[in-house]
Amino acid sequence: MHDIGQTIDAANAEALRRILSADPWLVDVVPAREVLRDLPDRTILHAGPPITWERMCGPMRGAVTGIAVFEGWASDLEDAETQAEKGAFRFEPNHDHGCVGPMTGMTTIGQMLMVVENRTFGNRAYCAINEGLGKVMRFGGNDAEVLDRIRWLTTGLGPLMGAALRELGGIQLKSLAARGLTMGDEMHQRNVACSSLLLRQLAPALARVATDKAELARALTFIGANDQFFLNVAMPMGKAMTDPAKSIEGSSVVTAMCRNGTDFGIRVSGTGDQWFTAPVEMPQGMYFPGFTEADANPDMGDSAIVETIGLGGFSMGAAPAVVGFIGAGNASEAAVFTRTMREITVGESQEWTIPAMDYKGAPTGIDIRLVVETGIMPTINTGVAHKKPGVGQVGAGVVKAPRGCFEKALVAFAGKMGVK
Amino acid sequence: MHDIGQTIDAANAEALRRILSADPWLVDVVPAREVLRDLPDRTILHAGPPITWERMCGPMRGAVTGIAVFEGWASDLEDAETQAEKGAFRFEPNHDHGCVGPMTGMTTIGQMLMVVENRTFGNRAYCAINEGLGKVMRFGGNDAEVLDRIRWLTTGLGPLMGAALRELGGIQLKSLAARGLTMGDEMHQRNVACSSLLLRQLAPALARVATDKAELARALTFIGANDQFFLNVAMPMGKAMTDPAKSIEGSSVVTAMCRNGTDFGIRVSGTGDQWFTAPVEMPQGMYFPGFTEADANPDMGDSAIVETIGLGGFSMGAAPAVVGFIGAGNASEAAVFTRTMREITVGESQEWTIPAMDYKGAPTGIDIRLVVETGIMPTINTGVAHKKPGVGQVGAGVVKAPRGCFEKALVAFAGKMGVK
Repeated sequence: MHDIGQTIDAANAEALRRILSADPWLVDVVPAREVLRDLPDRTILHAGPPITWERMCGPMRGAVTGIAVFEGWASDLEDAETQAEKGAFRFEPNHDHGCVGPMTGMTTIGQMLMVVENRTFGNRAYCAINEGLGKVMRFGGNDAEVLDRIRWLTTGLGPLMGAALRELGGIQLKSLAARGLTMGDEMHQRNVACSSLLLRQLAPALARVATDKAELARALTFIGANDQFFLNVAMPMGKAMTDPAKSIEGSSVVTAMCRNGTDFGIRVSGTGDQWFTAPVEMPQGMYFPGFTEADANPDMGDSAIVETIGLGGFSMGAAPAVVGFIGAGNASEAAVFTRTMREITVGESQEWTIPAMDYKGAPTGIDIRLVVETGIMPTINTGVAHKKPGVGQVGAGVVKAPRGCFEKALVAFAGKMGVK
Repeated sequence: MHDIGQTIDAANAEALRRILSADPWLVDVVPAREVLRDLPDRTILHAGPPITWERMCGPMRGAVTGIAVFEGWASDLEDAETQAEKGAFRFEPNHDHGCVGPMTGMTTIGQMLMVVENRTFGNRAYCAINEGLGKVMRFGGNDAEVLDRIRWLTTGLGPLMGAALRELGGIQLKSLAARGLTMGDEMHQRNVACSSLLLRQLAPALARVATDKAELARALTFIGANDQFFLNVAMPMGKAMTDPAKSIEGSSVVTAMCRNGTDFGIRVSGTGDQWFTAPVEMPQGMYFPGFTEADANPDMGDSAIVETIGLGGFSMGAAPAVVGFIGAGNASEAAVFTRTMREITVGESQEWTIPAMDYKGAPTGIDIRLVVETGIMPTINTGVAHKKPGVGQVGAGVVKAPRGCFEKALVAFAGKMGVK
């Protein structure tokens, strides 16, 4: 047992080394069809582990029907639903195709995807552009306004941002995120600092490459008015950082956490691409006026990838303003979340540090052994969608990753290590 | 005595009410000559209380010679110095003309000035555009690079920003500053959040009004690369907020604190425009590589106006990252500064609050009675200039307002109140 413990520790140190030595850059925005060349026709990538139409929650179904109309695979939402029931669409997890998406996380070939490149390892990860707040597809919105916005992201903002990023040679994300942590962002429920810092790097290049003044002003307005714009950058940053830590023999470090609104799924380095799932939990949080927990859909989205790299709930100490927003207690106790999460991680970042905690590093590298042993579940900061299709966001809160995922993963991991 | 105490308390409550009810907006950038119509020829406005050439410190002299060349009043720096010695220039405090300026604070008719309008009271305050970091006139820089930059601020960025602000109808500063406090800015030594938030509001309007693409890109680059850009907005915001609190009979609240590098000066509401001065102190802080305290000029600039409205050292609790930058102790102890400053203020802001202190308000309205009584001097976060002309910034630190100002002010105030 002692030798196996040492083997696992060494493998985890290597997983942590790979995650912490990542150098993610936002380098481009490209048509999804260029990235997802081998995707079968009418495939819809979604957040979380694999799921069928039958088991999908309301907002996920709402988003599916919306994106089917956007892609021209259905004439209207009703037609899309009928087709979905007949099995006309193929559903696969974003994570299986190098992608991530917040909440419902719809990724299809007709969209534009932001590209994050990990320059230490050469791998890439992809995510659609954040739609803004209000009625949006990631929260299950699917009406004409929602689809029109995605069309503009595809034909307007996406190509313009791509050209600007190529002109700049990319934007380094690790230093930007480090700065964001000193400015109250934890990069899950709060991205106002990183969104602003990104815009100020992007704006001059946008001005240089833009050919249409009104379109440039629209792009600057859209990005500048969206405090969560950076979320969809932080997420592929997370995936680009964790992917190189996949499939290290003997490592019990979590490489992905995600939710499809029905199941929570995790992947562990030593067990490769295998999903370990359990029913998602209900976020505990704050609701927008007119809504209550009775309206809420359970936990959803690939966004928990940011907790996997030590941000979000793990870096709550950097973001006291988030604590109140998600109804998690007193702002002055933000550091407690970070200290608690440090109990279940292999290490912490030297580059992502929290001033108010005297520059303690973001807790990084969740060890499934520590999670099961301590009973401390990863804390995830999240938005809350209405449980019905087409409504949108109703609140924000904090949610725990379900214990079941980690227990199943530990059993499988132990089996692989030859331990009963 | 009891009645006088009540009179003073009531007058101070009114001063506090005026400061806190201010609604400052950044509305325009205009040629200084339009604002300073009555200024005698060859007048140079400077930071701090009144001072003669003979008593000016090195960096202030450096800036004076530089700005004289910029204005075309001297052929070169040497000529400017000779003329200054002969009394060719007239020196007056910025504060006497509705202006403020950081460090040396040179304001002359050939520059462009940003305009902050207090929409509650209709008054306006002015400040030149921040030059950026490195070798700049506010730290005593005066070579060709420094003057060229000021020329571009005058002919390029200034007019463009002015047009953008007019197109927008102005930018409300109070809510922007409130947001900055939740993002780690105290708006004296740290302005990265507010600078970024300002840019994201300004950028779309800049794009709409710009006629030259390269000039637009240059403007966006310049603002986006300057983490202290907002300092020169926060300062006239401070002056616009405190000016309506001037000359309230019986009020012992400080309406201005400023330094010229030789003297520290304060104004108190109940004693109107009278300056109370004492020798400036030396900041305690951190020096850039290659510099030590032996290189440092004592405290300088009108920027302490931000402490007068509860920001800077008074809101240190919002900006733990500043504590280390200025060498003032452990970041986790930032709140101690704010709590201590609350001991010498009449009240606190309801709108400017600090998340990490469970939304405690910025301590506002310094009462000279409390300062003298407690012996707690206002804490000011500041940059440090080299003591020789032409060198520039050598560090940053924290400095105390000198006790002498407050004692003199209290004596004069008491005299005015009929108390021995």
